[in-house]
Amino acid sequence: MQQRVEQLRALVEAYLAELALTPELGTLEPAVRHALGGKRIRPVLCLATGDAIGARVEDLLPAAAAVELVHSFSLVHDDLPALDDDRERRGAPSVWAHYGEATAILAGDALVAEAFRLALTYPTPAVARELVDATLAMIGGQQMDLEGGAPLDRLHSLKTGALFSASVMCGLWAAEVPSSQHGPWRAFAGELGLLFQIVDDVLDGDGYVLDVGEDAARRLADEAAERAHARLAEIDADTVVLEEIVGALAVRST
Amino acid sequence: MQQRVEQLRALVEAYLAELALTPELGTLEPAVRHALGGKRIRPVLCLATGDAIGARVEDLLPAAAAVELVHSFSLVHDDLPALDDDRERRGAPSVWAHYGEATAILAGDALVAEAFRLALTYPTPAVARELVDATLAMIGGQQMDLEGGAPLDRLHSLKTGALFSASVMCGLWAAEVPSSQHGPWRAFAGELGLLFQIVDDVLDGDGYVLDVGEDAARRLADEAAERAHARLAEIDADTVVLEEIVGALAVRST
Repeated sequence: MQQRVEQLRALVEAYLAELALTPELGTLEPAVRHALGGKRIRPVLCLATGDAIGARVEDLLPAAAAVELVHSFSLVHDDLPALDDDRERRGAPSVWAHYGEATAILAGDALVAEAFRLALTYPTPAVARELVDATLAMIGGQQMDLEGGAPLDRLHSLKTGALFSASVMCGLWAAEVPSSQHGPWRAFAGELGLLFQIVDDVLDGDGYVLDVGEDAARRLADEAAERAHARLAEIDADTVVLEEIVGALAVRST
Repeated sequence: MQQRVEQLRALVEAYLAELALTPELGTLEPAVRHALGGKRIRPVLCLATGDAIGARVEDLLPAAAAVELVHSFSLVHDDLPALDDDRERRGAPSVWAHYGEATAILAGDALVAEAFRLALTYPTPAVARELVDATLAMIGGQQMDLEGGAPLDRLHSLKTGALFSASVMCGLWAAEVPSSQHGPWRAFAGELGLLFQIVDDVLDGDGYVLDVGEDAARRLADEAAERAHARLAEIDADTVVLEEIVGALAVRST
């Protein structure tokens, strides 16, 4: 099943590499492409959701890419000097450090707009609606983070959980799964987002680790992974690849 | 008919004043609301389009507001120090000058996301599709402007024309006018955007005025107004309020 995850990741990489940007973006293209690095966790999750319900994963690629573009948008703007002031991202200069602040602001804008363009290629507006709600949550979460003092779980839910949920839910909407079947999926996605964030905090030594210590944070991550597995067990679908993803997120080291 | 324009503007003002922002945006709300000043030319144009075809203008308010929010988004980001570095907007501090750069970046992001949320309240994704294309054009136009050297008509078409067109076209999509009837409307909107921009240049003493001189720029504006009227005459709808808007844009002094 690890093999299937790698197949899905390769599909995402190929789709993003060949993605034609809106021609009007002109010379923003290199900055937009520079921003599109990453591990593809969210788009792979979107495709694996499609796999589980027997959808054609190729049909879900625009939705998967849209989620990834929203993720990239948030990193490009969060890295700006006025926000987190990060000169590096994934071992390379961040977009503003490489292309300047003005281009980074516009490249972030372009990424979020391109994300909605992709989400809007489906006949149903539901994919884009799911994505816009997650985007608004992330923006609010970043503002909350800037101000400081917010409860960690609320912050994580907005900054990370919302887009993890959207990764799963956009897959369902794109595959036209009726909303009556969404409940356990949304619950699963929530646990997965929490798992991802706690492990992130353990790897970075911040967040939950500062709140409760590393051992307790690892236990919280294991509990979230257990709940994610339990939610998957409730779902009438072939969730073996998703089980694999839960397991990989629980033990990841980067 | 000037009275009807004022009625439409009052509808827009009331809708925007009462617009409930996404709760997750939290403390971004004052900055977002600060950004929402302006003359409401685009949303009034959207509603007047609805009026012309006999649609209920109240039903077009989300589309009209979405267009206005995209306009506000672009101003908030363009005013930033890294871009145009404008401390003032409409006789008041710009969003970054009042709330700081970080909040202004996020408030701009919030405005564009809220715009798509509103555009996505319609059953058809066509309203949001029209808006996303205009948004991408504006972002590309701003990048082109930063780089300098672009032909003025191309720059104006991206930075101003695209959203003027979207103002009209979102009204048609929201009212579910079939695309087979869109041709003359799109042509009208194009002329109106050009008219607006040339008059803007005349009032600011830049753009076309620097290219061809003030008298020639005024003649170009008059010609655009004539063509806009001619396009309206081709349309089978009650275009009297739109005629009024063309006339007002041609002679505006602010």
